[in-house]
Parts: sequence; structure tokens; C-alpha cells
Amino acid sequence: MTTSTTDAPKVATSPEALLAGLRWRYAVKKFDPTRKIPDATWQTLEEALILSPSSFGLQPWKFLVVDDPELRAKLKLASYNQAQITDAARLVVVAAKKDFGAADVERFVAHTAYVRGVSPASLEQYRQIMLGFASQPAAILEPWVARQVYIALGVFLTSAAVLSVDACPMEGIEPAKYNEILGLTAQGYTALCVVTAGYRAADDGYGKLAKVRFPKSEVIKHL
Amino acid sequence: MTTSTTDAPKVATSPEALLAGLRWRYAVKKFDPTRKIPDATWQTLEEALILSPSSFGLQPWKFLVVDDPELRAKLKLASYNQAQITDAARLVVVAAKKDFGAADVERFVAHTAYVRGVSPASLEQYRQIMLGFASQPAAILEPWVARQVYIALGVFLTSAAVLSVDACPMEGIEPAKYNEILGLTAQGYTALCVVTAGYRAADDGYGKLAKVRFPKSEVIKHL
Repeated sequence: MTTSTTDAPKVATSPEALLAGLRWRYAVKKFDPTRKIPDATWQTLEEALILSPSSFGLQPWKFLVVDDPELRAKLKLASYNQAQITDAARLVVVAAKKDFGAADVERFVAHTAYVRGVSPASLEQYRQIMLGFASQPAAILEPWVARQVYIALGVFLTSAAVLSVDACPMEGIEPAKYNEILGLTAQGYTALCVVTAGYRAADDGYGKLAKVRFPKSEVIKHL
Repeated sequence: MTTSTTDAPKVATSPEALLAGLRWRYAVKKFDPTRKIPDATWQTLEEALILSPSSFGLQPWKFLVVDDPELRAKLKLASYNQAQITDAARLVVVAAKKDFGAADVERFVAHTAYVRGVSPASLEQYRQIMLGFASQPAAILEPWVARQVYIALGVFLTSAAVLSVDACPMEGIEPAKYNEILGLTAQGYTALCVVTAGYRAADDGYGKLAKVRFPKSEVIKHL
């Protein structure tokens, strides 16, 4: 567990390195199945997922890193047979907490008291605000949880890009089949999407196409 | 417009720099109102928003950078009077496309043909897949659009962190009031949340608290 410090990190990233990574990345269609991600790099990407921001810091997510070839073959069948599921060096199943509610808030409050070495009583006001939020109907909470999980997806994709690791976020999966294959429902989670990560194949034509973004004038408005 | 290249960027980021940034960041409660973000750094962060990944690359979003003090004062009243709205160096209103549908797909296909210098006919198969997707009911598409926008939120927060720029994502706003103040509804968008950015005040006590994350063993599962 790390403490935030007022001083900015001594090792920073240059704007050029950040943009170079974001321009270099694309949704890889064909991975080089022979290239593996160095373990230290992968540990960093897992740590980035853990450090992802979320509303109130509630972290309503779980990430399953699936290496087992048999499981990946099964998941491929539940992913419209997309090759990345088995060809990428790594497969992360991105899952959201189901039935988010008071129990999740209590778990977070207890962990906050533990990490910060404070009494749960000192967190009572914060707890009440979160309990109020978590008492909303599922129709509000379920899409809210999913949005939080997509923050983590953005963190992962940016982190991979700046570390020169290729990735492909994929929504084209059958969540119900994923939940069954991975036993997610019993754990109280549901699969939302996957991210495959590794290195692009030299002959993935998509890597040579110009990146398509709407003009800045249409995307960003200054007021 | 940039072209993806197979070679990884020559200027990369170290795992240490990435993690240092992600550990350093937190949701700033009190900004130093006297510190501004250097313009080159801010341009980089706007570019990061533009480069954010989204499903099919459809970019169903708009970002409003609000500098006008009077507008920010009004938005503060629509944000439960939270100080960051006026004290942060920058305020970004994160908005989602409303009534996402066929017209948005057509706009994207036309722009893709333009950027890549190909005929729209050559994109017909891709177009049909996207039109099929976009023909789903609003109950499916609206939360899907919001999730895409939250990818961009994750990209922005990670980008700010690695550039040592502080930020605070804020969901505690009244979207209907934001839409009215900013004229978003007429433009076909709706406010989802805001991100304030700048530099933490030295006396923001929240910056000194230990970061609370669930243990890795509970967040990441290896299979």
C-alpha cells in the first residue's frame, strides 16, 4: 500500500512519450502468438489495474487473467471465434460486481480503516454517504458499476500503450457463457468485456491504417 | 492525423514512471487556485482525449473545456457547490452523444473514408456491422455510450497522472442543469461527469492519506 505524496514523482513521462504511445496503439486484430510480455511489464499492467480510480474508490471490479490454453479455447467459442482470444500473450476478462450494495460499501469501509489505521467510527460520515448512494435501485447502480469498470479499461489501455505493449479491447463476447465457464456468477461478478494484450503481428494490416479521429474542433469545445 | 506504425515508439515510458504517476495521483479535494497548467501540457491532455479508444472507434463523446469564470460559477451551483469546479486550473465537462444511432455511424464511416482516402463502398461490410449494432434499443445503446465515454475518462486520468498533473473526476453534478447552462441538449449531447485538473494545494489533507486498494489477491485472479 502506498501513500500519496505532495511532491510529483521524480520519474515522470514526457508529453512526447505519452502521445507516441497513444498514437502507436490500435485495436490489434492479429497478434504474434510467439511473443510473450516480459513478466515485469505484465506485473506493472496488473498493478495499473489495481490502482485504477473509481467513484468513492469503491473498485467494483475483478480482473481474470486467463493463461490456461483449454480455458482460452473455450472462451474463444464464446467470443465469436475471434483469434485474439487464444493468440494474444495475455487475456484479461474484465468483470463487474453484481448486485452492488451495502455489503460492498461495508467491505470498503472496513478495508479503508485497516489500511489507514483509523477507527471505523471516524469514517462514519463517509460511510453514510456511500450507503445512501448504494441504496439506489439496480437500474441506476448496474450501469454505474459498469462505467467504473470502463475507467479501469481506459487506465489499462493507456498504460499498455505507454509501455509499448499492444492490446485489443473486445466487447464482442457472450457474457453469460463467460460467466458460466469462469464461474463468475457464483463469485458475484459478471463479465463485461475482455482485453487481449501482447504484440502485433507484423502482417496485421490494421496496424498500417491511419488512425481515424474526428477533428479536434468537433470533439473539444472551449468555453 | 497520424498513422499507426508497427515499430514501438522510440520514446517510451518506464514501468517505474507509470506506477509512480498512478500512485501519486488521488482525487484532489483542494486545488491550488494560483497554479496553472503549462499550455503544452494541456494540449497534450486534450490530444489524449481525442486519441481515446472506443468501441468500433465511434467516439460518441464531446469534451467541453470551461475557462469562463462566470460559467464556472454557475456550474459550481449545479455541482453541490464543490470548490474544485472553480478552483482547479481547468474544468472538463465530459459529455455523451444522445440518441446514438445510424446517423452517428454514417458520420464515422464518411470520416473514415476521408481520413484513409478510400471509397465509402470499400467500408460497406464494416458499415453494416455498425449499423446493426446501432439499431439496438436506446436501453442498450445509452449505457454503452456512457461506458465508452468512461474509457476516455480513464485515458485522461492516466495521462494526467503520468504527466504529474493533478485531477479530480467528479460524478456529483446535476446533469440536467449542466445541459441547460452549456446548451448541450441542443447539440445532441448530455453531461455525464466532469474532470477538474490542476495542482493540489499543499494543505489538501487527502493527498497525505494512504491509497486504499483491495489486495491484489482479491482483485486479480489467475486461471
